[in-house]
Amino acid sequence: MMQKAVVLLSGGLDSTVTMAQALSEGNKVTALSFRYGQRHTKELDSAKAVCNYYGVEHIIVDIDLTSFRSALTRENIDVPEDRKIDSQIPITYVPARNIIFLSIAAGLCESLDADLIYIGANSIDYSGYPDCRPEFFEAYEAMLSKGTKTGVEGNPLKIITPILHCTKADIVRLGKELKVPLHLTWSCYKGEDKACGRCDSCLLRLKGFSEAGYADEIEYR
Amino acid sequence: MMQKAVVLLSGGLDSTVTMAQALSEGNKVTALSFRYGQRHTKELDSAKAVCNYYGVEHIIVDIDLTSFRSALTRENIDVPEDRKIDSQIPITYVPARNIIFLSIAAGLCESLDADLIYIGANSIDYSGYPDCRPEFFEAYEAMLSKGTKTGVEGNPLKIITPILHCTKADIVRLGKELKVPLHLTWSCYKGEDKACGRCDSCLLRLKGFSEAGYADEIEYR
Repeated sequence: MMQKAVVLLSGGLDSTVTMAQALSEGNKVTALSFRYGQRHTKELDSAKAVCNYYGVEHIIVDIDLTSFRSALTRENIDVPEDRKIDSQIPITYVPARNIIFLSIAAGLCESLDADLIYIGANSIDYSGYPDCRPEFFEAYEAMLSKGTKTGVEGNPLKIITPILHCTKADIVRLGKELKVPLHLTWSCYKGEDKACGRCDSCLLRLKGFSEAGYADEIEYR
Repeated sequence: MMQKAVVLLSGGLDSTVTMAQALSEGNKVTALSFRYGQRHTKELDSAKAVCNYYGVEHIIVDIDLTSFRSALTRENIDVPEDRKIDSQIPITYVPARNIIFLSIAAGLCESLDADLIYIGANSIDYSGYPDCRPEFFEAYEAMLSKGTKTGVEGNPLKIITPILHCTKADIVRLGKELKVPLHLTWSCYKGEDKACGRCDSCLLRLKGFSEAGYADEIEYR
């Protein structure tokens, strides 16, 4: 039976491949993005382009998180470049971001009578983010089963994390398998014409394409 | 030792008494309110007035939930009047509202290095809301302990629900004890000059004052 799914879509590589996976599994998909005080809207533009490509309904929720401390959302903090990627919690960590985004996805699921939330979280490349770990998603599902109408009625929402244990190379390979328009996705923390190729996100993406044996079709400066 | 607390403040009776309780326990309080597509801003005006009264920092987060189905946020659905208050999930239920509000409170806590979230949820009068039950708050705390930086570091956020098991009369009594400016609070679902006295929220409030043996100082039409 076809299920309805809400997919958290940033417009980056991971969430786009995640949406393709949700579609390939036969779900009726609604994509959910956020305008939350990002430095730039390149990702949102990518999310729109990807939704147009797939003919998927796209809901953008405005939420003002600019009062939250974060290198990603504050103009006056530099995005780190060429930083060693290690297991520490990164400076670009946005407090409770996945907790917040999943909560709004849950509300949208209840509104749409959807059963599934897909999120492109990854516990390999983002092992420093507490809200990208398997045990977090298990606890979140348990919370939803207690706190939502559908949960109380015995049909709790499920959180699906198709790429949780994938390396970036695995994600690129899956994207290629699913014929995802990877050239439409945007990963760079900066919002310039071309990707910077030097921020954490660009470095991870380039490493993933390289290890998977594919060329990244987006332009780098 | 003084702790920092984020208090979810709607400007209604329950959340205002909850904030007074947080203050009386010696916490440094930041109040958090939401502009989320309510029919009116009377509650927010009340929240501001209460924060001014106490000299408490007040943060209002804008979040567009108008795409969510709800009698509270849709102009074209009537607020039920004189409805029997029973254990069914009420028509005014906003999908995942407490889940969403708590998630943003958690993010703010991480930004402010706060330890506690106070929420004026009530499992007696609102027994039909899944996200007002004790087991929900326990599951939410468990989720936060897995998904936040402070949780992973061994100092998880706590959710405090001072009025969870109070009747409305208990809440009025507690408010009177704490010398809360109850005349500044707003409970009516409608946003008119005077409270309607007929919606679920007015009926509960009036019953509470009556049972506690106090006059409600706000004006009813």
